Amino acid sequence: MMKEHTDKRFEESLQGLKELILQMGEGVEAMILLSMKALIERNSKLIEEVIAKDPAINELEMTIDERCLELLALYQPAASDLRFITIGLKISKDLERMGDLAVNIVENATEINKEPPLKPYIDLPVMTSKVQKMVKDALDAFVKRDAPLAETVCRMDDEVDDLKSRIFDELVGLMQNNSNAVGRGVRLIAVAKHLERVADHATNIAEEVIFMVQGKDIRHGKNG
Amino acid sequence: MMKEHTDKRFEESLQGLKELILQMGEGVEAMILLSMKALIERNSKLIEEVIAKDPAINELEMTIDERCLELLALYQPAASDLRFITIGLKISKDLERMGDLAVNIVENATEINKEPPLKPYIDLPVMTSKVQKMVKDALDAFVKRDAPLAETVCRMDDEVDDLKSRIFDELVGLMQNNSNAVGRGVRLIAVAKHLERVADHATNIAEEVIFMVQGKDIRHGKNG
Repeated sequence: MMKEHTDKRFEESLQGLKELILQMGEGVEAMILLSMKALIERNSKLIEEVIAKDPAINELEMTIDERCLELLALYQPAASDLRFITIGLKISKDLERMGDLAVNIVENATEINKEPPLKPYIDLPVMTSKVQKMVKDALDAFVKRDAPLAETVCRMDDEVDDLKSRIFDELVGLMQNNSNAVGRGVRLIAVAKHLERVADHATNIAEEVIFMVQGKDIRHGKNG
Repeated sequence: MMKEHTDKRFEESLQGLKELILQMGEGVEAMILLSMKALIERNSKLIEEVIAKDPAINELEMTIDERCLELLALYQPAASDLRFITIGLKISKDLERMGDLAVNIVENATEINKEPPLKPYIDLPVMTSKVQKMVKDALDAFVKRDAPLAETVCRMDDEVDDLKSRIFDELVGLMQNNSNAVGRGVRLIAVAKHLERVADHATNIAEEVIFMVQGKDIRHGKNG
């Protein structure tokens, strides 16, 4: 009876952890979308909105870490639950960094939007959608312990890298032909890199999920 | 007797974890120094050396994570040891990222060094020394559980940020005045940002150490 009682409380607490992580994930997804919208629509109200959302995300990182420590200390989980919780500790950091990257994006947007648009945004919105999907799928893969879904995230990372390289080359070309483009160009390159880093964090999460589910550590191209 | 026996094995295993983390830290420090030397001395042999060092660092991340999971599963440590080990899991990721950043630096150096030097390097070597010291001190603070040392790391981060901004402004100015500088300029900005991110990772570690020692979570400006 006691054992069952403990198991039930453990399951509830673990469920609470999953919900916190999904909540943090949704918050971060919103920050990324809004930050890119702020840039593309030149909307300074959205810039403030992104910055205003960051403290709650930071708070969630600490709440999640506390929950993980509590689960480890109180229930001494074994095997796959242990791994799930330790990955939770890493994911909270990945998500917190993604939130910071959204803030970095709006910091650049603030400067970029002081000048007229350098060019129509074509690749950046595509990159944004892909990155957002990666973040969502990585977290779904985590809570559902779904390795095939995590694998799709890893594959999308290559597409995002290609888009980033294309944006980089195009902007360098623009800057070389027009010195007035330099200020905005270097900042747009920074935005593309920030987005790429968000995708890298989503890929980190996906790799940890594959490791958790399959016991196969695919980080660093290691197979098994 | 059994208890003492277990305690002794736990202490040994924990000591092993510290040594692995310090070993990984030394490897990463070397990579950062070499990557900047490769850039500043235009030395392509050093570029290869940095790239060759990365797989061992990635391997160490996985070894450290396994050791942490083992410590958690076998000994169910409580309180400060539990926190020490969970921070170990985060540090392995911070160090692995620093290694990747050194690789990113040499990737940029490869391109930059195809052209003549844009300008003498003055701020970047200063920034490199500061960042290297931050990495070293953050890890020392961790293994010695030394909060005051960790606090000096957090303070140095502001100096590194200032240097990065100065480098950024100077390079943007150069690019605006000379379109031939654009290719090298954007890449040197990338290098400065990579170094700044290494410093951010060292600061992450330092903040975790302060939290571990003082039970005071100073991440995100939270005091207490």
